[in-house]
Amino acid sequence: MSTEQAAPDPRAGDAAKYVDPEIMDELLSMRGSIDNIDAALVHLLAERFKATQRVGVLKAKHKLPPADPGREKAQIARLKRLASDAHLDPEFAEKFLNFIIEEVIRHHQALSENSVPAADLDAPFDWASQK
Amino acid sequence: MSTEQAAPDPRAGDAAKYVDPEIMDELLSMRGSIDNIDAALVHLLAERFKATQRVGVLKAKHKLPPADPGREKAQIARLKRLASDAHLDPEFAEKFLNFIIEEVIRHHQALSENSVPAADLDAPFDWASQK
Repeated sequence: MSTEQAAPDPRAGDAAKYVDPEIMDELLSMRGSIDNIDAALVHLLAERFKATQRVGVLKAKHKLPPADPGREKAQIARLKRLASDAHLDPEFAEKFLNFIIEEVIRHHQALSENSVPAADLDAPFDWASQK
Repeated sequence: MSTEQAAPDPRAGDAAKYVDPEIMDELLSMRGSIDNIDAALVHLLAERFKATQRVGVLKAKHKLPPADPGREKAQIARLKRLASDAHLDPEFAEKFLNFIIEEVIRHHQALSENSVPAADLDAPFDWASQK
């Protein structure tokens, strides 16, 4: 690939200004894989929040507490085991789950404060109203 | 499902103590889906860190800076578009990417400080030595 082709690539970033073309090609290929994985992560996260939103609606409907420390403890232990098997830093997996759970609890609290009417149980989550 | 069956389920958490069995069954089914998604997320994250580790080794080898603000800006804009299409909060997608990038930069800095020898370029990342 020539530099003329590599220059307008959205994956090039600032590196295009100071990296040799051959190294840039290698970097662009790696960044292409990262971008594919990120697209998959975003779609899985969207699906995960749809699932936790259903849990949030169930909890709000039955007036259950938004957080469940016993469940979180089991989730963290399981994810650390899975991470270790996949050669992912288990401490990072725990930090990641806590990061996600924090966001989920924020949604659950918003749902329970907004006292969702029964007719809205299958409605898509309205992000704008939670800000 | 009877309470006798539901009680030892690792997905039950503390909710088993205060939730009606019928509602508990619904909650367990939703939590099962969340657990499946989390396993997929952990494996994708493991693959993502393998890819960024290769980028880190390339950067260390050619003495390139660990961070690339232009690339990060393009990644954030792209992920926010993808998130919006998938009905995921775009602000959350940005927070998520920043959370991941922070960890990646930590790895890249560790790699460049450790001045990886050429023979180690394909070696698996040693988490323990980075702590």
